[in-house]
Formats: sequence, C-alpha cells, structure tokens
Amino acid sequence: MALKTLSAKAAAALDKELMSTGAFSLDQLMELAGLSVSQVVYRVHPPNMGKRVLVAVGPGNNGGDGLVAARHLCQYGYQPSVYYPKRPKNDLYQRLAKQLEALDVPFVDDFPTALQSADHVIDAIFGFSFSGEVREPFPAVIQAMAETKVPVTSVDAPSSWDIEAGPPESGVGSNFHPGVLISLTAPKPLVKHFRGRHFIGGRFVAPGIAKKYDFDVPAYEGIDQIVEVGSEGLKL
Amino acid sequence: MALKTLSAKAAAALDKELMSTGAFSLDQLMELAGLSVSQVVYRVHPPNMGKRVLVAVGPGNNGGDGLVAARHLCQYGYQPSVYYPKRPKNDLYQRLAKQLEALDVPFVDDFPTALQSADHVIDAIFGFSFSGEVREPFPAVIQAMAETKVPVTSVDAPSSWDIEAGPPESGVGSNFHPGVLISLTAPKPLVKHFRGRHFIGGRFVAPGIAKKYDFDVPAYEGIDQIVEVGSEGLKL
Repeated sequence: MALKTLSAKAAAALDKELMSTGAFSLDQLMELAGLSVSQVVYRVHPPNMGKRVLVAVGPGNNGGDGLVAARHLCQYGYQPSVYYPKRPKNDLYQRLAKQLEALDVPFVDDFPTALQSADHVIDAIFGFSFSGEVREPFPAVIQAMAETKVPVTSVDAPSSWDIEAGPPESGVGSNFHPGVLISLTAPKPLVKHFRGRHFIGGRFVAPGIAKKYDFDVPAYEGIDQIVEVGSEGLKL
Repeated sequence: MALKTLSAKAAAALDKELMSTGAFSLDQLMELAGLSVSQVVYRVHPPNMGKRVLVAVGPGNNGGDGLVAARHLCQYGYQPSVYYPKRPKNDLYQRLAKQLEALDVPFVDDFPTALQSADHVIDAIFGFSFSGEVREPFPAVIQAMAETKVPVTSVDAPSSWDIEAGPPESGVGSNFHPGVLISLTAPKPLVKHFRGRHFIGGRFVAPGIAKKYDFDVPAYEGIDQIVEVGSEGLKL
C-alpha cells in the first residue's frame, strides 16, 4: 500500500485549514515541524557522526522550519550553522533568527565554503509552495548540495524539484538527489522520484482533517514526532 | 550538588525575558512546555499502564501547558479528558481548547466523578505565579487529588503549594503530595518539600539566560525534552 500524497494545492489548503478550523498558530506548527526535522537529523546522523550541521534556509515557511530545527539541534549538542541569505521581514522569522543568535549559532555568508567543514546539511530552501525557477542566490547552493558528498536531509521537498513531477529534466537541481527526505504532514507527489530514506513528521493532524484531505496519518511510535516509511510508503 | 532554584519573582522575570530578549512567543514556549509535560507522563505512566489521563486545567499559563500536554498525549494514543472550569477569553487559550475539540478530547464538568475512571491525573491548575488562597471551584479538586490513589503529575508546582514555602500548614493542599513533579526551566524553592519523582523540562533556555538567572540547565539526553533529577537535584 503506497502512502497517499498531497498535491501542492492540497498542501496549501491543509496548512490554511490547520490555522483556521484547526486553530493552530503558525508559531506552533513551525515549532512542531522544525522539531520533527531535528529528530530526523538525530536519527540518521546522531551527534557522534559529526556535530557540524549546516542549515540552508530559504525565504518562506520551509526556511522557518529549518531555523527551528537548527535551534533544537543546538540544544541536542550539535554545532549548527545557518545560511540565510533572504530574510523575510515579518516578526516570526526575525524572532526565530534571534533565538539562534541567543544560542550563539553562527550565520554564514558563503555556502560552498561552509559546506567544506559540514558533517550534514539540511535543505530548508524551498517547500511545497515552490514552482518555476530557482532564484538567486540559490542555484549555486542547490548545485553545491547536488555535488557534495556530505549527506543532505531535505525538508518536505528536495529544493528545485517540482512538487508533482519531481526533479527538473535539466538545469539546476536535475542532478540533486538528497539521501534523506522528511515529508511534513503527508508526502507530496514528488516522493515517487525519491530513492533515499523517507520520513514523515508533523504529528499534529487530527484524524478528521486527514480524512477530509484524503491522506493517512502514519503510525508514529511512542513519543516520536517522526516515522520512517519505505519508498513505497510502507512503515519500515 | 543541589539544583539551584528560581524564586517566583525570578521565574516571572525569566518568562518575560524569554519573550523579550529571548524572542520566543508564548505560543512557542507553551508548546514546548506542554510537550515536556506529555513526555513526563509517557515516562512515568506509559499507555500500557492505562490510557485515561485526566487533566485539571487552571485559568493561567500553567493551565495552557496542560492543554498542550493533553493534545500530545492524545497523539501518543492516550485517551485524555480535560477539566477546564475557568476559561480565559484570550485567543491562545481558545485555540488550545479548539485543537483538543478537533481531536474529540472530551471536556468534563465534574472532576471527582471523572477521577473515578482515570488512570493518571495531570495537575495543571496553578504554577509559579500562584499565591494566596485557592479560589472556587479548585479547593474540592485539589482535595480530590490529595485523597485519590490515582497517580498525579503536577506541572511546575503542586497546586495550592506556596512557591517558596511548599505545602500550606493547614487547609486546602496541606495533605496534597503528588507523586511526580515537572519543574519548567528550573525548580522552584518548593522542591525542598517534594519527595516524589522530579523532572525538569523546557529545553529552550540559552546558556546566557540561565547564567543571568543563576540556574543550571540540566544535562538533557538525546532528543529528550525532559530529564529526571533526584530529590537533591542529582541526575538519576
């Protein structure tokens, strides 16, 4: 049984519904999403495999999840650093960055150089709302993630991939195949093209909402905020 | 080495600082505090010991932590129910309640009756800002928690206890000795009088802030949001 997937449009509607009828604030959802990202990194790359986690943060909600994940990783004893070239001006994003500054998490300007001394990368550049072209300065960042041997965990989507069709046929991202993906709340159609370790996170959806959007809440265990699923969506 | 404690006044100032210079929103802090409460319950009372957790929710932030904990416990497979007689009108509290309604978590009106079919109780009535007299309808609720054989986990303080001096010498709460306590961010002076299992939760304080307020961030393990400490504050 393959896991049901959520189109980009349905994922946007779900987010909206979680914040309207679901009554969640963006702060809450992002906190739990970022927490689940941090748990995936801990699972696939525990601190004894190397503590230097480089987080590539995009300009939207996907980036916000990355900022939250960086904070939790710092609390777990990692040494995260953050590449965050396009900063939205709204209050929440500014606060998430300030929380990292309070933990002395460094912000880096040069991604390729930072990558040379990283043990793991989080790709939190673009999420389910991405479409069209990769804008500057991200093409070179995605190219670097495509070429590096440092393991990469993508949040919700490998950045530059089309949410429905997967990797672009040519150009930026066509050769980007991260080793780990965490789908937030539910996988997007692009997972058909993904061959790495696949997790689902975001343990906050009520069964009624999952039913309405026609996806399955996976069988999380214990207090885990994440669950690993196989490429066919089977629980491992 | 005993853990350093935070007076009620210092705890209030710390909360304020976390939200000003720390740049956290109340939504975020409450989410992480409630998450840590849910992890304590899972640790001391896993679902196979009984899933019916009754959450006594007070009118302030302590109650909000209880509402968040109830939601996470529901996601863990427990069957929480919530006693919530005094509901603040502000947006956050209304949303936290609505999130529980979306999960079909029942709200109960009669605490003593609900207690008869509970496997565990969370006391989230009063926290570090409590002082003076226990107002209606909570005296009977605290009395019921003092007398029941159902195990009780108190959030930040056994409700009715003086934050500095501990249990009142007479009247409501003088015989209330919950088996489990979770201190949020740091223990309050009342822990000197507490003899049950003691946890610390709230893994979001930056070392600089802990230093300023002169308390120790305990040695959390792995991705845990909680850590058990002995009665002398030693890590078990």
